[in-house]
Amino acid sequence: MATQANSVAHKTVVEVDPFIPADQQKGIHNRWHPDIPPYATVRPGEVFKVGCVDWTGAQIGNNDNSDDIKNVDLTKIHNLSGPIAVEGAEPGDCLVVDILDVGPFDKMPWGYTGIFELENGGGLFAKEFNSRACKAIWDFKGVYATSRHIPGVRFAGVSHPGLIGTAPSAELLATWNKRECGLIAEHANSVPPVAYAPNPTGAYVGQDLDSAVLKKIGEEGARTVPGREHGGNCDIKNLSRGSRCYFPVFVKGANLSVGDLHFSQGDVRELSFCGAIEMAGVITFSTSIIKGGVEKFALKQPIFLPSPIDPLYSSKLIFEGISVDLHGDGKQYNMDATVAYKQAALNAIVYLQKLGYTREQAYLLLSAAPVESHVGAVVDSPNACVTLAIPTGIFDFDILPKDEGLTKHDLGQCAIRSDGIL
Amino acid sequence: MATQANSVAHKTVVEVDPFIPADQQKGIHNRWHPDIPPYATVRPGEVFKVGCVDWTGAQIGNNDNSDDIKNVDLTKIHNLSGPIAVEGAEPGDCLVVDILDVGPFDKMPWGYTGIFELENGGGLFAKEFNSRACKAIWDFKGVYATSRHIPGVRFAGVSHPGLIGTAPSAELLATWNKRECGLIAEHANSVPPVAYAPNPTGAYVGQDLDSAVLKKIGEEGARTVPGREHGGNCDIKNLSRGSRCYFPVFVKGANLSVGDLHFSQGDVRELSFCGAIEMAGVITFSTSIIKGGVEKFALKQPIFLPSPIDPLYSSKLIFEGISVDLHGDGKQYNMDATVAYKQAALNAIVYLQKLGYTREQAYLLLSAAPVESHVGAVVDSPNACVTLAIPTGIFDFDILPKDEGLTKHDLGQCAIRSDGIL
Amino acid sequence: MATQANSVAHKTVVEVDPFIPADQQKGIHNRWHPDIPPYATVRPGEVFKVGCVDWTGAQIGNNDNSDDIKNVDLTKIHNLSGPIAVEGAEPGDCLVVDILDVGPFDKMPWGYTGIFELENGGGLFAKEFNSRACKAIWDFKGVYATSRHIPGVRFAGVSHPGLIGTAPSAELLATWNKRECGLIAEHANSVPPVAYAPNPTGAYVGQDLDSAVLKKIGEEGARTVPGREHGGNCDIKNLSRGSRCYFPVFVKGANLSVGDLHFSQGDVRELSFCGAIEMAGVITFSTSIIKGGVEKFALKQPIFLPSPIDPLYSSKLIFEGISVDLHGDGKQYNMDATVAYKQAALNAIVYLQKLGYTREQAYLLLSAAPVESHVGAVVDSPNACVTLAIPTGIFDFDILPKDEGLTKHDLGQCAIRSDGIL
Amino acid sequence: MATQANSVAHKTVVEVDPFIPADQQKGIHNRWHPDIPPYATVRPGEVFKVGCVDWTGAQIGNNDNSDDIKNVDLTKIHNLSGPIAVEGAEPGDCLVVDILDVGPFDKMPWGYTGIFELENGGGLFAKEFNSRACKAIWDFKGVYATSRHIPGVRFAGVSHPGLIGTAPSAELLATWNKRECGLIAEHANSVPPVAYAPNPTGAYVGQDLDSAVLKKIGEEGARTVPGREHGGNCDIKNLSRGSRCYFPVFVKGANLSVGDLHFSQGDVRELSFCGAIEMAGVITFSTSIIKGGVEKFALKQPIFLPSPIDPLYSSKLIFEGISVDLHGDGKQYNMDATVAYKQAALNAIVYLQKLGYTREQAYLLLSAAPVESHVGAVVDSPNACVTLAIPTGIFDFDILPKDEGLTKHDLGQCAIRSDGIL
Repeated sequence: MATQANSVAHKTVVEVDPFIPADQQKGIHNRWHPDIPPYATVRPGEVFKVGCVDWTGAQIGNNDNSDDIKNVDLTKIHNLSGPIAVEGAEPGDCLVVDILDVGPFDKMPWGYTGIFELENGGGLFAKEFNSRACKAIWDFKGVYATSRHIPGVRFAGVSHPGLIGTAPSAELLATWNKRECGLIAEHANSVPPVAYAPNPTGAYVGQDLDSAVLKKIGEEGARTVPGREHGGNCDIKNLSRGSRCYFPVFVKGANLSVGDLHFSQGDVRELSFCGAIEMAGVITFSTSIIKGGVEKFALKQPIFLPSPIDPLYSSKLIFEGISVDLHGDGKQYNMDATVAYKQAALNAIVYLQKLGYTREQAYLLLSAAPVESHVGAVVDSPNACVTLAIPTGIFDFDILPKDEGLTKHDLGQCAIRSDGIL
Repeated sequence: MATQANSVAHKTVVEVDPFIPADQQKGIHNRWHPDIPPYATVRPGEVFKVGCVDWTGAQIGNNDNSDDIKNVDLTKIHNLSGPIAVEGAEPGDCLVVDILDVGPFDKMPWGYTGIFELENGGGLFAKEFNSRACKAIWDFKGVYATSRHIPGVRFAGVSHPGLIGTAPSAELLATWNKRECGLIAEHANSVPPVAYAPNPTGAYVGQDLDSAVLKKIGEEGARTVPGREHGGNCDIKNLSRGSRCYFPVFVKGANLSVGDLHFSQGDVRELSFCGAIEMAGVITFSTSIIKGGVEKFALKQPIFLPSPIDPLYSSKLIFEGISVDLHGDGKQYNMDATVAYKQAALNAIVYLQKLGYTREQAYLLLSAAPVESHVGAVVDSPNACVTLAIPTGIFDFDILPKDEGLTKHDLGQCAIRSDGIL
Repeated sequence: MATQANSVAHKTVVEVDPFIPADQQKGIHNRWHPDIPPYATVRPGEVFKVGCVDWTGAQIGNNDNSDDIKNVDLTKIHNLSGPIAVEGAEPGDCLVVDILDVGPFDKMPWGYTGIFELENGGGLFAKEFNSRACKAIWDFKGVYATSRHIPGVRFAGVSHPGLIGTAPSAELLATWNKRECGLIAEHANSVPPVAYAPNPTGAYVGQDLDSAVLKKIGEEGARTVPGREHGGNCDIKNLSRGSRCYFPVFVKGANLSVGDLHFSQGDVRELSFCGAIEMAGVITFSTSIIKGGVEKFALKQPIFLPSPIDPLYSSKLIFEGISVDLHGDGKQYNMDATVAYKQAALNAIVYLQKLGYTREQAYLLLSAAPVESHVGAVVDSPNACVTLAIPTGIFDFDILPKDEGLTKHDLGQCAIRSDGIL
Repeated sequence: MATQANSVAHKTVVEVDPFIPADQQKGIHNRWHPDIPPYATVRPGEVFKVGCVDWTGAQIGNNDNSDDIKNVDLTKIHNLSGPIAVEGAEPGDCLVVDILDVGPFDKMPWGYTGIFELENGGGLFAKEFNSRACKAIWDFKGVYATSRHIPGVRFAGVSHPGLIGTAPSAELLATWNKRECGLIAEHANSVPPVAYAPNPTGAYVGQDLDSAVLKKIGEEGARTVPGREHGGNCDIKNLSRGSRCYFPVFVKGANLSVGDLHFSQGDVRELSFCGAIEMAGVITFSTSIIKGGVEKFALKQPIFLPSPIDPLYSSKLIFEGISVDLHGDGKQYNMDATVAYKQAALNAIVYLQKLGYTREQAYLLLSAAPVESHVGAVVDSPNACVTLAIPTGIFDFDILPKDEGLTKHDLGQCAIRSDGIL
């Protein structure tokens, strides 16, 4: 018969508390460096769980104003759980990582999406919109999310880690630092900066390490903002629960780290900077090793197989954008996919406003929902063309174009600052 | 009983011959201008067919060398069939266009994909690869395409028009010309040019028009290369047969034109410049009008609903790319989605070479097959992240990573120049 | 360049005229028998087309009453085009048949769905409904069908042959005749009959054959009503254009025959007996041979791979049925999947009536549209459970349950008898 | 900031222990009766969780022989958690139930599929195979299941409750008892019985009830084996996590009960009687009420909307079956969908054996995996036609037909009896 004895729960290799600041917890770090020792070790084939704080380390609350977004401390972000060594992995191997599940903590069934202040984080439209802090709290109801701040929608999460990667070797780290510092030097006065050089301030490794090692990690460790050859902050929504990812291994043990879990996001989450539905939670993995996989598969950076349970909404309303800003300056840009993307998003935002959403609600929704963005054209000079597809099935009401026009619903507003400034 | 009398075929409003140069045929034009009169008129609700030549106007042959690609005359491209007026359409309305079917001529069941010479057309990797002309001929077998030049694959076509749009008003045309000429002025010496100003040379309207009108069209008419607010050369693969598109109307009758049919293409067809499977053929439409639709739907440019019969291949192998060129200069680019896209494509090409394809075959295949490209990240400085998903089900053999590595098949080579230069 | 010379159309191996009675045309037959010689021969790998009359051989017209359904001559049905021999195929081989395309004749862009009279054809509800002839004419608009007799719906066709199979060997034919005549003997007085024995009356082979051969075919030839080990009248909607089917070969050449094309049908087309959208048209094939495939794949009857372009409608409203007839006798049936299916269908019909459809329109729609029917349970005594899933995206209006109930639309009626009897 | 105070976990309204026999636990019952009082009450809109034991109440163990299957006590099955009353629900209303999630207990990450002995449970092929007990233990790895007893496969679960329903009214219960007892009377000596009459023996209600009430429930309460108008044991795999179900309400509060959770199953789970992957676990719900919904939607029994995250495997190998038993007696059956289904399953089993699975492994796999079964034809006398589709993507190796035949893998055997009898 079924007994406790023959029923063994999967082990958790990193335990965190979502209500405690990240830099007070073990098994968390916020730099990429080969000298960070493994916090845990697993065997190939073993199923294991990793707890993760949310990307801000508990700075954002489940409430109805956005003051916490306004005042967020961005020096304390992107905390990673790990590293986790896999027995037998060696440089040149391929580490196969099965992302078996991703979900929130039972005790914290909510997450958030934020528009950040122009002066503190920003976002894709920060300047055009002169962004002030806004927020939507999402309630997790099993596989779905809904928000009291964006009524009328419910969608299944394409839950995934925003940040996941293997540790760089010393050589790879040196390459990163050299090329990124080169870019920074080229754009010395750029605001915001074009990249972030290593910086000991705020560096954290939740292990008992020798101070010299900690110092080295702080001075050399790569920042977590961009994605790189090892994975990292790629924000690929389809690296979701059920997917299988093939990582290159650069150090003995591979040393996998993960964090910044998202319950859901659209293809381009950064629309509102913090555009995913950010959450704290647990990710479940198993791993295997393909010896010499880097050479076998020409693995310059990860490749992956998507999940068979990514949400399927076959009916979509698709917006186009070209690299011209008709909504604003009317200027012609030269094959700029970002301008095209912004125009597609603006077209969608204005459409959603016709249905009753505020601009801020629409902006948050396009970031958080499983919106797909495809690159249509990048060489038909001078106009890049990008599409943005909104699944119609996530809405409680019919959003398709009708002969009689669109029905404007009463949909309130998202959470804004307590001083009411928008 | 079923009789000829009670069985009325759908009418064809533009008849073309795919074997005759475009500028010798009626109902074809190659500029966008409000003064091009409708070549045909249809009623809302009516089903009608439009014949289209291939984008080069019969310059490319079904043979086994690429000399025709090498020598293609690019001044004679992008021929449009139309314009077709819809009774009752007026400026400010929304023209609903159902793309009911798109297919090749029975007498021409083949198409092609080409890599163009660096000096005559180029393509995304023209400089990196120092591109010489290459070609794959695709045989159309019902809903599928196969190629003797790229063995081992077969896929269902996501057939669509590369070019479709309503006619611009005089005001909109003036706006285009002003902004595009502004861009050209800013980049006066760019090679290739950043945009194409109106140019009477090569302008063609296959109707009996007064010479003053023809002159005006030539001098003012917008070139067909880019997509614009009216649609145009957007190369959106999912504007496929079965889709429904909502166009803004700028002139009385809407004056719809269409051309550059593709049997299939990946999300970013321009990988090899002429990366779609180009074909001559027939597109079937019906239309309806939503009065005042531009205002009702905030229609700055077309929106559309995708087709329920777009090919579904749920199993995919996905490559990532970041805005660093490790394959070449090792340089760090700043949030450049195009570099990221190129790296993802290069990662895929090298992988496909492990399976036995040549670089040129892989390049053509990624352009022609229903490959999806998503934008993962555009604000995680300094690295944009782009994914490129290859459906595994289009291959005759298993392409997934295996413990033992990939099996190299003997897959020949695509069509190359008769002088053998590659 | 593209020329007539390098562009070879696929050949048509059986040419038919959809407006001429089947038994006046060459290349058509209506019995399965090994002695029917091939009408045409093809090579493996070759693409070829086969013309097919509609299943009644032009008896039904594109008009607005159902008198032709009422008076249909059911002795003249199920005409097959072929047989087509494939070079090199031998008994024991597997004939791989690619169904590359299926579509109507350009000159006949319409089809029909019928409810047959209780006394002349019947249907699943013939007795419950005391069925009188009803009809819906469907207009084919590219990949879609719509009907003036069932307004408010439009769906993409999952087009397929109702009937397709290889020729039986003499031994297999003898087996069929023996077992089916055994069943008939067991149920000697059944109305309608449980099966149809060979019958020379009405037997037709559109080839110049010796009269002794014709006589033998008439006396022994298997009737076309049921599906059997060779394929036959399986009415599997997903054996659609784009599918690949593996047939056992029983005679030299395999001798493939095909007919009864459907533009669309639900999983259980026989709901209204002639429940598919019946059409005349053209099917495109290619074939290959796997030597000894019957043994290699344990091929007792065909296996197949579905098409990547079968219509995808992810949003569905699903009805359940159990083997109890609450709508009528209230009786408990014992694990009877057919009763369960009928109840699920009745539940759906009554729901559709709330939306404004008549019972007959609903009945026709469930037969013709891409409705899915799954078997949920067949051993939970005493109730079998069957589900029936209607895609919501085929309707112009929202059919989902709402707090305020369902909106009743004015949707007219299907074509009925000219005497108005329903 | 995120705190315990602003993070409220969803409440659990029925707590069970999967390692304790069901009839020793509160909140469990095993009969349907209107007099079973609600064990818990919830408000519309509230998210709540319900713990469920496995269908045998802990009788089956995570081990490597099938003796527990052989000896299972079938009088102690189908335990339901509940009833749960919803505030405000009244007879005639529609209870909208969102199945928000379904998953195993963390402490019991495994389940099982069993073939039951001919004499103790049986199954669809019990007689043909003279079934002896077999078992496969499945390990739950996040969204996937794998089995050491059926190597080579891994699939995402379409997790769902096998049993869910609202409580019957006294009138409805009387109707059930009358019609089912009528059927039993008609088939008095049937083995196994055609239905199960009310029986106080083994009846259990895990609440402190007056003995007279308990007696009445035992004497009148409907057994849990079949599905009925209120839902019940429908074993519909797509009533899965993420689906929305509309139940008719028959008593005040609706009184919802649920049990028999499945991690996965094919369309016809009863293939091997206990063919689903049976598990203990937790189901998460929310509800709402549509007043008068029974009338509004003609709700004779539940209707539902499927989940957007049901596993999607687009590539399938499809087997056909007709109502002839070629594998055995060669007899012709008359339109019998069950025979057709069995033949399709046998065709698939023999095919899987060519790949190296034993008959028992194949039998278990077809029951447990997300296999789809469609009814192709039920009126083409005399042969019903059923299809059975196996997703190819669940296998580690390629199962498609190849020119060279199928590769036989070494795949061991499932768990069998400790005496080795098969």
